[in-house]
Amino acid sequence: MALIVQKYGGTSVGNTGRIKNVAARVARYRSKGDQIVVVVSAMSGVTDNLITLAREIMPLPSEREMDVLLATGEQTTIALTAMALHALGVKAVSLTGSQAGILTDGVHTKAKIQNITPKEIHRHLDDGNVVIVAGFQGETPDGQITTLGRGGSDLTAIALASALKADLCQIYTDVDGVYTADPRIVPGARKLDEISYDEMLELASLGAKVMQSRSVEFAKKFGVVFEVRSSLNDNPGTIVKEETRNMEDVVIRGVSLDKNQAKVTLVAVPDKPGVAARIFKTLGDAAINVDMIVQNVSHGAGAPATDVSFTVEKADLLKAQKVIEGLKKEVRFGEVIATDKIGKLSIVGVGMKSHSGVAGKMFETLAKEGVNIEMISTSEIKISVVIDLAKAEQAMNAVHETFLG
Amino acid sequence: MALIVQKYGGTSVGNTGRIKNVAARVARYRSKGDQIVVVVSAMSGVTDNLITLAREIMPLPSEREMDVLLATGEQTTIALTAMALHALGVKAVSLTGSQAGILTDGVHTKAKIQNITPKEIHRHLDDGNVVIVAGFQGETPDGQITTLGRGGSDLTAIALASALKADLCQIYTDVDGVYTADPRIVPGARKLDEISYDEMLELASLGAKVMQSRSVEFAKKFGVVFEVRSSLNDNPGTIVKEETRNMEDVVIRGVSLDKNQAKVTLVAVPDKPGVAARIFKTLGDAAINVDMIVQNVSHGAGAPATDVSFTVEKADLLKAQKVIEGLKKEVRFGEVIATDKIGKLSIVGVGMKSHSGVAGKMFETLAKEGVNIEMISTSEIKISVVIDLAKAEQAMNAVHETFLG
Repeated sequence: MALIVQKYGGTSVGNTGRIKNVAARVARYRSKGDQIVVVVSAMSGVTDNLITLAREIMPLPSEREMDVLLATGEQTTIALTAMALHALGVKAVSLTGSQAGILTDGVHTKAKIQNITPKEIHRHLDDGNVVIVAGFQGETPDGQITTLGRGGSDLTAIALASALKADLCQIYTDVDGVYTADPRIVPGARKLDEISYDEMLELASLGAKVMQSRSVEFAKKFGVVFEVRSSLNDNPGTIVKEETRNMEDVVIRGVSLDKNQAKVTLVAVPDKPGVAARIFKTLGDAAINVDMIVQNVSHGAGAPATDVSFTVEKADLLKAQKVIEGLKKEVRFGEVIATDKIGKLSIVGVGMKSHSGVAGKMFETLAKEGVNIEMISTSEIKISVVIDLAKAEQAMNAVHETFLG
Repeated sequence: MALIVQKYGGTSVGNTGRIKNVAARVARYRSKGDQIVVVVSAMSGVTDNLITLAREIMPLPSEREMDVLLATGEQTTIALTAMALHALGVKAVSLTGSQAGILTDGVHTKAKIQNITPKEIHRHLDDGNVVIVAGFQGETPDGQITTLGRGGSDLTAIALASALKADLCQIYTDVDGVYTADPRIVPGARKLDEISYDEMLELASLGAKVMQSRSVEFAKKFGVVFEVRSSLNDNPGTIVKEETRNMEDVVIRGVSLDKNQAKVTLVAVPDKPGVAARIFKTLGDAAINVDMIVQNVSHGAGAPATDVSFTVEKADLLKAQKVIEGLKKEVRFGEVIATDKIGKLSIVGVGMKSHSGVAGKMFETLAKEGVNIEMISTSEIKISVVIDLAKAEQAMNAVHETFLG
């Protein structure tokens, strides 16, 4: 008898018909004699409706009260899911985050799980119940309702799998698993059978939106093996786990493209200590997340000067430009060039560590396609380049063909 | 500094605009320096929508899960109401039934309040907050979510007023208070300044739907004085309290008409011991609530026989007829006559106890109007008659004119 944690997202429980489908799947697993804990999100659209109501009241509602409000979304789903299991003759009981023993810190709307006391879950499992737990929510030690922020339901599932020492943790979503590339852009993309936490993290942070980084990080930290799979069919999904030796046989696991970046270049920045710190400290103070930073070597005959480029999210571009303009008097750089017509193309794979020449092969492929590389950044298992947005999808297909075709 | 409990029903918080109106009223009271606890219902329509969702899943959902589901309705309102107060610059905090310390028994969907531990409420009041409590809900000692059933939010307010030893308990609704009669039927009906618990109970049980009996009974038991008043204006409402000597100066407090009754007459029932018990025990076993019962004296020369009439709710009439037909062989009565074309007209007043001739005056009034009395039933402070539905409103106006005109 195995203990399985299954998580179903908002689309999978988007209406009562889909909730019945979820129940049918859970019942099928249950009929094999396994114990099942189901984590569900709010029905798709419900959270947005609640946010709209709150905004009708005031533009920036209290975060404590937002949590009280939003927590009703998952509470609705757990009750309906339990009922749908009853309708199939399966014993089931619902638990809110608080009832499930999910304790968090007090940072409302983005609380961190501190501890899980799964006493109630075990009690109901032992009574022969499927236990339905509200994702995305918990409570503080003094009984305040909290929510976990973006990707919170995935986090609930993985944290529960860890606390319950589950044999299996399945994250059901509307895609079949993790792909070598976005199939909407790369027709030849293939579903991966397995991927390491680190590769998944690089892909998550690169905008392959299967899961939020924090859930993967949590899984990595506590060694929770999980499977990303579709709630629409019975295809096996992608197993996410610690890297194994044979994973390194594959040089590149996947290719991703982030079109949500913008680039700012400061021309002729005085090349002296403290200047870069001044620039990026100021951006950080303005809560602007800087992703890639590239600084060229000094040039020119007079006072040493350098060009500094960095990328930010598109939504932050105007704000970043304003912050930079404010520094102009003090730092005394030249022109500021900004563009959001860029794409960040990345290849990811733990195999890179043991295979040389990967970067060269990637750059060669881009050159053949006539694609100019504007910025480069690398990590141990990732190479990213910033290129012209107009050629980004063509470049992505070419790179995918080179490494994964 | 007074402590005031205010309760707002589903219509009063039916949309965000109305919630803002509620907040404005609360803020006005708060600005006088009083401490305010606000009890709110689910926004009108929300509970019905949740029930519809549940029914889409299965016709008779588990009552435990219905409670988990329905409790989200009030939870939504408390958060929005707290936000609306914040928007006016008023400190406010929301509490679910469970957070407010409302402990109930485990009878899901119609739980009884067992105990209130208002520690959290006091803590937040002491911090200078208006405290918004979800009506209609509580939790069992082992942490299951419960709801209190019909009229549950009124009950929450009155129970809280008792537990907090509130100076004032105001039940806001969409009418100005309790009237001498339904103003839609009796144009001359007047709003009452005060009414005793017992009178209010008789009126509630007679279908004057201002409040459910159980809330009034609770208030009576614990001596909670409360005011029923409108959330749409600033008119003073009706004070409900223990009867005082001067209340008896008024002979009749109000006139009510219940059109929701049906009458069944069993002709020629054998007049021997055990027969009435057999009939009404059987109806009770079938969960049919019998209201009035009238048995005439025996008549006829042969074996003694009598006519037995009783009233039930219209919705139960067919079921009652079926139950009665099933008894025919055993009890051996004659014809069964059933009609739902009746009205039950009642006059209520604690003054009846000290004034004689009230019944006679009522029957005389009806005779003058040419209204035939089919059944009569009386209590210490009430006289009810069953009459032809077609003449019921005319009769009500005449009786109101006689006693209250």
